[in-house]
Amino acid sequence: MSSEKIVDLLKVQGFRASGVSCGIKKNGKRDLALILSDVPARVASLFTTNKVKAAPVLIDMERVKKGGIRGVIVNSGNANACTGKKGYSDALKMTALAEKALGLDKGSILVSSTGVIGVPLPVEKVEAGMKDLIEGLSYDGLPDAGEAIMTTDAFMKTASASAVIGGRKVTIAGIAKGAGMICPNMATMLAYFVTDCDVPVAALRKALKEATDLSFNSIIVDNDTSTNDTSMIFANGLAGNRPARCGTPEYQRFVRLLTEVSTRLAHMIVKDGEGATRFIEIKIKRAASDKDARLAGRTMAESFLVKTAFFGGDPNWGRIMAAIGKAAIKMDESKTDIIFNGVHVVKNGLDTGMEKEAAAAIKVREVVVTVDLRMGKGTSTIWTTDLSYEYVKINSAYRT
Amino acid sequence: MSSEKIVDLLKVQGFRASGVSCGIKKNGKRDLALILSDVPARVASLFTTNKVKAAPVLIDMERVKKGGIRGVIVNSGNANACTGKKGYSDALKMTALAEKALGLDKGSILVSSTGVIGVPLPVEKVEAGMKDLIEGLSYDGLPDAGEAIMTTDAFMKTASASAVIGGRKVTIAGIAKGAGMICPNMATMLAYFVTDCDVPVAALRKALKEATDLSFNSIIVDNDTSTNDTSMIFANGLAGNRPARCGTPEYQRFVRLLTEVSTRLAHMIVKDGEGATRFIEIKIKRAASDKDARLAGRTMAESFLVKTAFFGGDPNWGRIMAAIGKAAIKMDESKTDIIFNGVHVVKNGLDTGMEKEAAAAIKVREVVVTVDLRMGKGTSTIWTTDLSYEYVKINSAYRT
Repeated sequence: MSSEKIVDLLKVQGFRASGVSCGIKKNGKRDLALILSDVPARVASLFTTNKVKAAPVLIDMERVKKGGIRGVIVNSGNANACTGKKGYSDALKMTALAEKALGLDKGSILVSSTGVIGVPLPVEKVEAGMKDLIEGLSYDGLPDAGEAIMTTDAFMKTASASAVIGGRKVTIAGIAKGAGMICPNMATMLAYFVTDCDVPVAALRKALKEATDLSFNSIIVDNDTSTNDTSMIFANGLAGNRPARCGTPEYQRFVRLLTEVSTRLAHMIVKDGEGATRFIEIKIKRAASDKDARLAGRTMAESFLVKTAFFGGDPNWGRIMAAIGKAAIKMDESKTDIIFNGVHVVKNGLDTGMEKEAAAAIKVREVVVTVDLRMGKGTSTIWTTDLSYEYVKINSAYRT
Repeated sequence: MSSEKIVDLLKVQGFRASGVSCGIKKNGKRDLALILSDVPARVASLFTTNKVKAAPVLIDMERVKKGGIRGVIVNSGNANACTGKKGYSDALKMTALAEKALGLDKGSILVSSTGVIGVPLPVEKVEAGMKDLIEGLSYDGLPDAGEAIMTTDAFMKTASASAVIGGRKVTIAGIAKGAGMICPNMATMLAYFVTDCDVPVAALRKALKEATDLSFNSIIVDNDTSTNDTSMIFANGLAGNRPARCGTPEYQRFVRLLTEVSTRLAHMIVKDGEGATRFIEIKIKRAASDKDARLAGRTMAESFLVKTAFFGGDPNWGRIMAAIGKAAIKMDESKTDIIFNGVHVVKNGLDTGMEKEAAAAIKVREVVVTVDLRMGKGTSTIWTTDLSYEYVKINSAYRT
């Protein structure tokens, strides 16, 4: 949609990163990234729920259980998914090459891939690029890594924030890729966070899950999930703060900071959504439960008809009513209100005669649609895009 | 997509029908239909599962329980959905007008509406058109009714078939509307069947459910359901056959005949799918269960990415693999085969190198994609369309 202003990314002590071109992308752009902690870091991660998982995902799922992680190597241009046993050994080789070059123990580097599915990974190119990658490591290197994980992204996605937690200033910085959530063909949404905050691993896992539910799991561009989706956070504790243990005020502050950074990245992914012309915030109020609220929001965001209406700038509340009615939630049509950018078009399930005003109000880039169900206290916010000619063009023309 | 050749519709003894213009549609096309049995008929019906139900659906749901039904009155151009109490009394009035004009008992006529949501039904136009509607009743009138229920349909949908059941020749004739399954804004898929077969009401209900699952419930154009979806069958028993009771060979033959007629109508709806350029048959083989097979097929048919790839003529098996992997079914990537119009592109989860051949094979109007899961004995067939520029155009531009 729009390109984002790139703001300076805060440095996080003890983390170096690098991003180089090793030739997987035919256009010579950066396609190999490394993020490394100077000391062993605690790691939490979330992976795709798709049953078809790429080889690097399978490897990471095992390694994060064991601990002793120092960093992650990532390539773009090839997803190393649906590549069988060779794909698995190629992913293992990627980690071994990095571990050897860095003089680290086996199992201390994680691995991700993103790009085309079903094509063998040219691991010899990764090998050839390893020297440059290691030499490029720098405390200023996170934006280079951010660039090297891009695929169809129109712009790079980075965000960072600082706060005083447990007596010290701590920082979280993150990079992400994804344009279209999700495009399995170009496999996928990836997000990496680094922080110097001291967070026990149980708290780190909980925090990543909470922040992800409110950010990456609250955005929808299309209704597909990918084979490679990965989100991970590395916490090296160098800030020396009182540890952000579960249930403490320190933990609450840490979650808030992580949610802030991840939400900014998530919004960038929606704004870079394939063919998107509008950024749509769906607010569900007074649902019977938060779960109902999320389901109602998701069903709206996934509806072909709701999305095409937004593209046309049409405040088509009948489609929204039908989408919510389809969701497995408690609702009563005669209690439902629908509001487009402040214009109340439906009150108690009936047309208020304000459609013209609503049509004028939503012919802008950013649209807020509020659905008030009057069934309870559940709320949710989901961010999505419209469905445009350009989306169809990008996704029908991409490969062939 | 393509217009269908209209074949002669078989007459069914004891059923008259009519279709006229009463002025709800601004273009003067037919918009009011009546189907009437000369004698009380057994009725079975299926209605939308959407929680937001149009007024006529609510009325029919009550009436079919009571029995004594003689026919149905249908208007197009206005869905009478999201119209509150006035909508309900307008729908009641439609039935009362028809019952009075025909000299029938209160409660003997069912009612359906299809068209724009949220606009009050101009019931005075229905009243003004009633005389023409009744005078137009004819044993040859079913195609007129078929025309009068159309909304965005590019062509009329009728089908019929005969067979010897229980010692007599019986006939089923049907009409349907729907272009895009489903377009809530133009509310909806409607289907009406008439038959002279003697079928007890329990068997009639079971037969309609079975035939609908294999036909209308196996087609997907987009992922929305509507406020007005209705399918109903009237059986007046005038063929004088041995009754097609549940569990008898007569019942089996009747279900087969009804499935044949309803599948032909369902295929017409897919071929008339909004903006469709291809008719896609998804065959799932050897799933762990029939339920798994249906879910896998549906998930593929609902995927934005799978549908856009078909529009582009791209045999993008990575997207199919990811779509199936997302479905809540048992699967093993390394046992999965994918075949496009006879070309085996994936064997045991791996690329066979036949994509160019597959791309050539699917650049046609009708595509069969087979997914062989090798997990059990479950099978399903789902019919769907691609997702085109035209779909976006129709659905973004329709109202405003």
